[in-house]
Amino acid sequence: MALIVQKYGGTSVGSIEKIRDVAQRVLEYYKEGNQMIVVLSAMAGQTDGLIQLARKMSDDPPSRELDVLMATGEQVSVALFSMAVRSMGYNACSLLGFQVPIHTDDLYGKARIHDIDTDRIRKELEKGCVVAVAGFQGLDREGNITTLGRGGSDTTAVALAAAIKADVCEIFTDVKGVYTTDPNICPKARKLETISYDEMLEMASLGAKVLEIRSVEFAKKFDVPIHVRSTFSRERGTMVIAETRDMEKVLVSGVTYNKNEARVTIKKVPDQPGTAAQIFEPIFQAGVVVDMIVQNTSEEGLTDLTFTVPKADFHKTMKSVSEVAGRIGAEKVLGDEDIAKVSIIGVGMRNHAGVAQKMFHVLASENINIMMISTSEIKISCVIEEKYTELAVRVLHKAFGLEDEAYPEK
Amino acid sequence: MALIVQKYGGTSVGSIEKIRDVAQRVLEYYKEGNQMIVVLSAMAGQTDGLIQLARKMSDDPPSRELDVLMATGEQVSVALFSMAVRSMGYNACSLLGFQVPIHTDDLYGKARIHDIDTDRIRKELEKGCVVAVAGFQGLDREGNITTLGRGGSDTTAVALAAAIKADVCEIFTDVKGVYTTDPNICPKARKLETISYDEMLEMASLGAKVLEIRSVEFAKKFDVPIHVRSTFSRERGTMVIAETRDMEKVLVSGVTYNKNEARVTIKKVPDQPGTAAQIFEPIFQAGVVVDMIVQNTSEEGLTDLTFTVPKADFHKTMKSVSEVAGRIGAEKVLGDEDIAKVSIIGVGMRNHAGVAQKMFHVLASENINIMMISTSEIKISCVIEEKYTELAVRVLHKAFGLEDEAYPEK
Repeated sequence: MALIVQKYGGTSVGSIEKIRDVAQRVLEYYKEGNQMIVVLSAMAGQTDGLIQLARKMSDDPPSRELDVLMATGEQVSVALFSMAVRSMGYNACSLLGFQVPIHTDDLYGKARIHDIDTDRIRKELEKGCVVAVAGFQGLDREGNITTLGRGGSDTTAVALAAAIKADVCEIFTDVKGVYTTDPNICPKARKLETISYDEMLEMASLGAKVLEIRSVEFAKKFDVPIHVRSTFSRERGTMVIAETRDMEKVLVSGVTYNKNEARVTIKKVPDQPGTAAQIFEPIFQAGVVVDMIVQNTSEEGLTDLTFTVPKADFHKTMKSVSEVAGRIGAEKVLGDEDIAKVSIIGVGMRNHAGVAQKMFHVLASENINIMMISTSEIKISCVIEEKYTELAVRVLHKAFGLEDEAYPEK
Repeated sequence: MALIVQKYGGTSVGSIEKIRDVAQRVLEYYKEGNQMIVVLSAMAGQTDGLIQLARKMSDDPPSRELDVLMATGEQVSVALFSMAVRSMGYNACSLLGFQVPIHTDDLYGKARIHDIDTDRIRKELEKGCVVAVAGFQGLDREGNITTLGRGGSDTTAVALAAAIKADVCEIFTDVKGVYTTDPNICPKARKLETISYDEMLEMASLGAKVLEIRSVEFAKKFDVPIHVRSTFSRERGTMVIAETRDMEKVLVSGVTYNKNEARVTIKKVPDQPGTAAQIFEPIFQAGVVVDMIVQNTSEEGLTDLTFTVPKADFHKTMKSVSEVAGRIGAEKVLGDEDIAKVSIIGVGMRNHAGVAQKMFHVLASENINIMMISTSEIKISCVIEEKYTELAVRVLHKAFGLEDEAYPEK
């Protein structure tokens, strides 16, 4: 008998019928003698509908009230799910964020979980209940409803699994697991059996939208094994776990890409202490998240500074930078929205030389120019022209031996 | 400066625009220096939509989970209302049942309020907030969400007004107040300036659906003055207050009718101790609410027993009664769905003789046969053939001097 936390996302509970399917699936585990905690998102479309309602009322809805509104989405899901389980003859009980309770800070709309009281859940489990917990929501110290931000239900599930010391946390989604790259642009992408938390963090932040990044941080911190798998199949998915020796044998685990960034270059910046601070201060103030920053070696006291920002913040950033450039006496500011970032990720890089060189070589052999490079212990990212994205992903995927050899027979 | 509790029903908050109108109206009072607590129902249609969703999931949805689901309706209203107030530049704060908290028993779907903690509300009022409280919902001792049943938002408002010692509780509805009778069938119906709690209780239970009956009981118990008035006009409505000497001068305050009952007669029942119990036991067991019961004087040890039940329960009741009738040796069972109950109500009856006689006389003069009679201190009800309902209401309304003399110029 195991204690299992399962999380089902919005598309998995998108209709009465789908909720019933989820209930049936959960009961299969329950009947095998497992204790079941089920974390649910709002029914697909609900969250967007509620946001639209709020927007109709106010251009800038107050975040406390927005959270009160948004929290109804998951409330509906857990109530309906519990009804489904009960209608199948088993016991179920829904618990909202305030009922668990899941204590958070008071950053409405993006609250962080402080701690979770597991007494009430344990009590319901002992009664033989399937416990349905509303994802995405919590309670601050003053008793106000908070929400954890988009994808917050993943975090709820992992945090719950950590707090109650569950044997596994299963995240059910509409894909079969974590892939070596995006199967949409590389049909030979292979589903990974296992991946380390660190690799998953890089994958998540680089655009593979399988797991919410904070949930992976949580899982890593508390060593909660996550099983990412499909709601619509019984197949084993991908285990996200702590790094093992075996993993290091593999050089590269995955190839990711991100087309949502734009590049800003400031030419001939006087290379003096405090210049970078002057440039980035107004950008940070405006809430823009700068990703890669590259500064070339100084020549005659002048340097070129290049960085990337989300495309949505590109114009705002260009405006801010142009003002500063004038003040600090830089030559000019260049911008480019047609870029993409391609990355290879793998814990094996730590102990293997030559991975970067191989990546540059592979791209060069296809005449793909590299505009920027940034590296970490387990990842190498290159900024290239956007039009080469798919080609770059495919050739890197092949060159690092990630192809599914059984394709297309699988 | 006054402390005012206002309650707005589902049609008053039926759309974004209407919620905005309500916010504007509330702010008019706020700007005059009043402290405002606003109790809101779910947006019109929401409650029915949620019930349908539950019914799709389960023929008999568990009541605990149904309450979790239903409570989202009011949650949406108070969040949107608070956004509206904030967008107009004033401070507002929504509070759900669990946040106030409003403590109830655990009779899901028809919970009764035990007590209300007013600390949080007072704190928000002192901050200068308009406080929006979700109607209809509470919290039981175990921390589960409960709902108070249909019309429960009226009860929330009155109970809150009592707990916080508000100066007045204003119930905003889609009618202008309490009328002497239904204006739809009697255009000369007059809006009452005042009505006593007891009269209002009789009005409510007899079919004038202005105020939920439990809210009136609450108001009477704690002597909370209720102002029933229209959301769509500035006109003064009707004050529901404790009985005053003045009220007794008026013989009859209102005429009501109810077409939702059916009559069951058991002919020639052996008149023995325990017979009535045998007949009614299975009916009560089935949850049927019996209204009037009339037993004629016994003749040769046999008596006729007649009673009324809601039309919806008529067939169930007939079946049950027919079985019992056979067992106890009654002659036969008759049923009639085409009946109506017409009532006159007035605290003045207490000290005036001849009111009943006048009622019978007025009905007789129109050739309307009286099938059953039931009286209380402040009301006389007659069951008549359904087809005469409107006629009976009109002639009684006129005979007891209730007509609006200004009609139709008003």
